[in-house]
Amino acid sequence: MQVKYPSESLTTLTDLVLPGETNPLNNLFGGELLARMDRAASITARRHSRRVCVTASVNHVAFNRAIPLGSVVTVESKVSRTFNTSMEIFIDVWIEDRESGIKNKANEAIYTFVAVDETGRPIQVAPIEPQTALEKERYEAALRRKQLSLVLAGKMKPSEATELKALFS
Amino acid sequence: MQVKYPSESLTTLTDLVLPGETNPLNNLFGGELLARMDRAASITARRHSRRVCVTASVNHVAFNRAIPLGSVVTVESKVSRTFNTSMEIFIDVWIEDRESGIKNKANEAIYTFVAVDETGRPIQVAPIEPQTALEKERYEAALRRKQLSLVLAGKMKPSEATELKALFS
Amino acid sequence: MQVKYPSESLTTLTDLVLPGETNPLNNLFGGELLARMDRAASITARRHSRRVCVTASVNHVAFNRAIPLGSVVTVESKVSRTFNTSMEIFIDVWIEDRESGIKNKANEAIYTFVAVDETGRPIQVAPIEPQTALEKERYEAALRRKQLSLVLAGKMKPSEATELKALFS
Amino acid sequence: MQVKYPSESLTTLTDLVLPGETNPLNNLFGGELLARMDRAASITARRHSRRVCVTASVNHVAFNRAIPLGSVVTVESKVSRTFNTSMEIFIDVWIEDRESGIKNKANEAIYTFVAVDETGRPIQVAPIEPQTALEKERYEAALRRKQLSLVLAGKMKPSEATELKALFS
Amino acid sequence: MQVKYPSESLTTLTDLVLPGETNPLNNLFGGELLARMDRAASITARRHSRRVCVTASVNHVAFNRAIPLGSVVTVESKVSRTFNTSMEIFIDVWIEDRESGIKNKANEAIYTFVAVDETGRPIQVAPIEPQTALEKERYEAALRRKQLSLVLAGKMKPSEATELKALFS
Amino acid sequence: MQVKYPSESLTTLTDLVLPGETNPLNNLFGGELLARMDRAASITARRHSRRVCVTASVNHVAFNRAIPLGSVVTVESKVSRTFNTSMEIFIDVWIEDRESGIKNKANEAIYTFVAVDETGRPIQVAPIEPQTALEKERYEAALRRKQLSLVLAGKMKPSEATELKALFS
Repeated sequence: MQVKYPSESLTTLTDLVLPGETNPLNNLFGGELLARMDRAASITARRHSRRVCVTASVNHVAFNRAIPLGSVVTVESKVSRTFNTSMEIFIDVWIEDRESGIKNKANEAIYTFVAVDETGRPIQVAPIEPQTALEKERYEAALRRKQLSLVLAGKMKPSEATELKALFS
Repeated sequence: MQVKYPSESLTTLTDLVLPGETNPLNNLFGGELLARMDRAASITARRHSRRVCVTASVNHVAFNRAIPLGSVVTVESKVSRTFNTSMEIFIDVWIEDRESGIKNKANEAIYTFVAVDETGRPIQVAPIEPQTALEKERYEAALRRKQLSLVLAGKMKPSEATELKALFS
Repeated sequence: MQVKYPSESLTTLTDLVLPGETNPLNNLFGGELLARMDRAASITARRHSRRVCVTASVNHVAFNRAIPLGSVVTVESKVSRTFNTSMEIFIDVWIEDRESGIKNKANEAIYTFVAVDETGRPIQVAPIEPQTALEKERYEAALRRKQLSLVLAGKMKPSEATELKALFS
Repeated sequence: MQVKYPSESLTTLTDLVLPGETNPLNNLFGGELLARMDRAASITARRHSRRVCVTASVNHVAFNRAIPLGSVVTVESKVSRTFNTSMEIFIDVWIEDRESGIKNKANEAIYTFVAVDETGRPIQVAPIEPQTALEKERYEAALRRKQLSLVLAGKMKPSEATELKALFS
Repeated sequence: MQVKYPSESLTTLTDLVLPGETNPLNNLFGGELLARMDRAASITARRHSRRVCVTASVNHVAFNRAIPLGSVVTVESKVSRTFNTSMEIFIDVWIEDRESGIKNKANEAIYTFVAVDETGRPIQVAPIEPQTALEKERYEAALRRKQLSLVLAGKMKPSEATELKALFS
Repeated sequence: MQVKYPSESLTTLTDLVLPGETNPLNNLFGGELLARMDRAASITARRHSRRVCVTASVNHVAFNRAIPLGSVVTVESKVSRTFNTSMEIFIDVWIEDRESGIKNKANEAIYTFVAVDETGRPIQVAPIEPQTALEKERYEAALRRKQLSLVLAGKMKPSEATELKALFS
């Protein structure tokens, strides 16, 4: 299968925060942000694989900064690494100051999707080749995250998680 | 005021069509598409003016092609021309074939927004300078559309609408 | 085909403005109003044609007056003119003062719908005969709007748009 | 206080049934219909009283007929009787056959609203005078329903419910 | 058919009140509460009957207490009595004080559901045996409510409504 | 501060899957499930802390099993461990077979919430004492997850993560 680049699956979802999407503190409701990230990430997975894709897991979402009512929010997602039939998708969330136009990082998140064939069975996806420094860093870290996830799920022995062993010893 | 370029206000809203957003024919419900375009256009207006902006009118929306359930839809909006306190926003809507990745134009629309100050009064916005051939073409046409809109609203005499007179005589 | 009257397709959608339907300025969100008008207009088109109908275009929407949270909003739509397979629908939007009960015009809009048969092909609709002074005025103006729309879409030469030529010369 | 007629508070909410408003059997979801009736009835209460109104109770809703996806549904509500600070609102729900245009009754419902002043305290509303035969019939029955509701809530002794005693003895 | 207990069909739906679910007074919108109760009650009906169930009527809903934005609301529903193919469902709604954790009753409601077979025809459901004092009280009252509903619908002569006659004479 | 038990913060949100909440494969849309879990978890956090709580992170969500349209879904959340001002919330998601009534595990998820005071500053929460075997197991694992999260965020040196070092060496 032909190698692809993260930029080929980049998905941008810029949208407002309206009152019906807030929590009682007048910030974007966490569940609504999780849903927007899921929508963007599923498009990224589909663009990379050209297949029907399903969410396999949400690996990490950090809510570092509340996003107030009326904000302009940009969700950007790209494939960070692939593993046979699964794709790790890295998502950055930005908010934009109206007067200065400056964008600040509000959150980041990591989702995993699996590509499936017509019968719903997982199917292989194209490998990925990171290009920018950030893409390379996320590509490397993805392997450690994958091992962690397997260890925590009891599907890999800690002693076999070579990347993690190196980290902790 | 410093001139700006259309590309500075480009807003991209890529999203899915889920079942809760369809009409009884299983295509994206027209009202939902109008709402997505309004959200993107209002961000474009804000990015150009760095002000609070309100929708003044929807000048034209052509629904050329139904957008089926499950599609990936991209709404792209840019300022096409400014007139003192108002901005004409041109919106292109694309759908993307999952297997080939090819994008096809589904719709286009023209909205007008006005920038307002803290008291809600219209306030001047930066002029715009089109750069690409398409931006220049839309910039030119915007003046004819503006005159038309004034004539139809009874705020300009047909005889003063020089652009239109030239067109129809 | 038997002639029909605009009053036969009159559709009234009176509803509240709840917090989940507002913009950050606490007024009815423009996209939500566009959706309500699309729903009412599609019922009008169906009542006139007794067929499945699809939105062909939004020709003009003027947002003259913000509609605050808690308002009672009435959307009224009627067929203003038909052209073979298409129907121009004229929509008036009213808000109602709670204490006096007086209704004020907030917006108006023009949508075009096409009636389709079982295979999705456009199909002829009944002609319409305007009755009130306002219906007659809108019926007349509809022809100019139709020509304009054809000229702007490059489907009619300006020199053939007899109604418009008369207007601008 | 000046007497009013039921027709003065008539509220019409005609709308479609879209896929996002259905239950798993592809009919209008019961909760969505209850919400639409609540919206229409609260407008009726406000039109009669010219006051802020709050839902006091839903007295009866009969779901006689499922309303399929794609239907045109009309909710019509009118004040049927007033009792000092409260208003009984009678709601009829109709669905319309697309081909014949014939309307059939799908449901009916009875809601009670109370008018309140600025401090939230119940405040007197105008009396009502029924005009049509149906309005008179509903006006009469409202008194029996009121007594029933008081008896069931333990706020009236059965022996004092003269209307009901007459019915059951 | 084997007797069941009300506790076997107990359904608990605890959820927040977010801004998109409020009315203009910043309390939970009545229609949204009616919808939540309908969802909980339909699950209760399904748990009792193990069949597809449809809402037959809403018999009574008392809105005693407004539920403010940000509240934690618990909807609890149980079968109170069965009548051949129908089930009366009793619903209690509680709000919870954040600081003390104390729950207060906000509303109660009575819905009726019917179990249907694959062809949509009503089908017999298991009888119920109340256990607690409250369940027994509601079980007894359900018969009076059933007779009332039949009398009001003109399907039973008042003289045959033995439970009610006893009450009013 | 007085110790609390996980059972004191147990939150149960049982609800249906309606068509407006599905993805194009007719299963519960991932983003909607993430939102429901966020709602339940935030109630759990509030019940444990009796404070306003905000989502700090989503640590893990495994989507093991698609949840079809029409399902009855139960989201159950409990505090699994506290760390000074933060609470780890463990969420189990169950679907229920209509005919047999048997519940099957569909997903599980781990969210972290922080309690804040009136000024938005993090504030200490009560410690927790696990009681059941499962609660004890999750309590133990929470410490490893906490260290992992600190290491991955660069806030703890791998060499100080004693729990993890023990795991991987």
